[in-house]
Amino acid sequence: MKENLIARATLGRLPLYLQYLQTLPANSCVNISATTIAKELGLGEVQVRKDLGSVIGTGKPKIGYVTKDIISKLEKVLGTNDKKYAILVGAGKLGRALFEYKGFEDYGLEITAAFDNDETKWSDTLSGKEIYPTDKLVEYCIEHNVKIGIIAVPESAAQAVCDMMLTAGITAIWNFAPISPIVPEGVLLQQENLALSLAHLKIQMLNSDK
Amino acid sequence: MKENLIARATLGRLPLYLQYLQTLPANSCVNISATTIAKELGLGEVQVRKDLGSVIGTGKPKIGYVTKDIISKLEKVLGTNDKKYAILVGAGKLGRALFEYKGFEDYGLEITAAFDNDETKWSDTLSGKEIYPTDKLVEYCIEHNVKIGIIAVPESAAQAVCDMMLTAGITAIWNFAPISPIVPEGVLLQQENLALSLAHLKIQMLNSDK
Repeated sequence: MKENLIARATLGRLPLYLQYLQTLPANSCVNISATTIAKELGLGEVQVRKDLGSVIGTGKPKIGYVTKDIISKLEKVLGTNDKKYAILVGAGKLGRALFEYKGFEDYGLEITAAFDNDETKWSDTLSGKEIYPTDKLVEYCIEHNVKIGIIAVPESAAQAVCDMMLTAGITAIWNFAPISPIVPEGVLLQQENLALSLAHLKIQMLNSDK
Repeated sequence: MKENLIARATLGRLPLYLQYLQTLPANSCVNISATTIAKELGLGEVQVRKDLGSVIGTGKPKIGYVTKDIISKLEKVLGTNDKKYAILVGAGKLGRALFEYKGFEDYGLEITAAFDNDETKWSDTLSGKEIYPTDKLVEYCIEHNVKIGIIAVPESAAQAVCDMMLTAGITAIWNFAPISPIVPEGVLLQQENLALSLAHLKIQMLNSDK
């Protein structure tokens, strides 16, 4: 099974499973069932079965899973031990919010530096990390072997920033600007649209009113 | 078809279709085909057919869709003419970024006010909108008939903020805090995890390296 086919909702729960399993005493919990995990985490059993199924397949009847196997599989899927570093361009409100967001660690991810054209920001640090001039981007990424870039600049600057990232050898881009920059084949581009979640909520609300 | 079953990716493209169709001269484009829409927007024809199919069904062979029918259906699904207002609690970096985010308008949504406990923020305005003390929340929501609340406070404050929203009559909550607050049945709760998109990108990257 290709890991990139794991559903977004499942992916959101995998760190929960991993954290729980890692806290278990190794000797007393050689095996564990989906039922136990579901109960301990307050989740539905069907959901846990489905989630684990998409990662590691079904457990053995009456025995369940080998605990250390699920742990190592979850670590592999989440890339916990294969930490990747990302940089961020655009230290505005959104950029700063992302820079300080705590949730990335669960997925073996860290944003190590931010870049901005505004020189008044260069003297700032965010959570002890530096904000650099944007023209240092290429040098930084090559030196630190960074392959993931986050675009948090306005629409008008997005393509130029994207081109700079490509020059820097970045191969995966998470873009918050409301245009889709042009990237060559082989470069992963993930377009973010914050409005979509709120729109989903509104549409559900409109439907439930009926 | 229930509108809340529309896929997230489709939902992201619907405003594109609507904007394009609204710019067409009404007389000369009574009908339009998925092929034309795909070509004009630089999208795949199969994708456009699938997107429109999930909203309005299939067009007539050789004729396509009645333009004004797609427009009104898209407006209905997106709730463009049924504008909803939201409030936000927590005017930190993330809250401010959301407050100033432009993309909500496409979905007939507006964040009209922010609330924060920190009195140094009360004198601020963001994009000309006010930041109020959190204890004004209930009064404000009732007075302005706001039914959507956004939680952008730290984990420790999330449940208290959520409870206050429920008292204020809010029925749909978009939560950015990394805990899932407890809400009664009938209240819509959408949990946001910003790390997921970056994690998805990383997992795709790990897989494409193989």
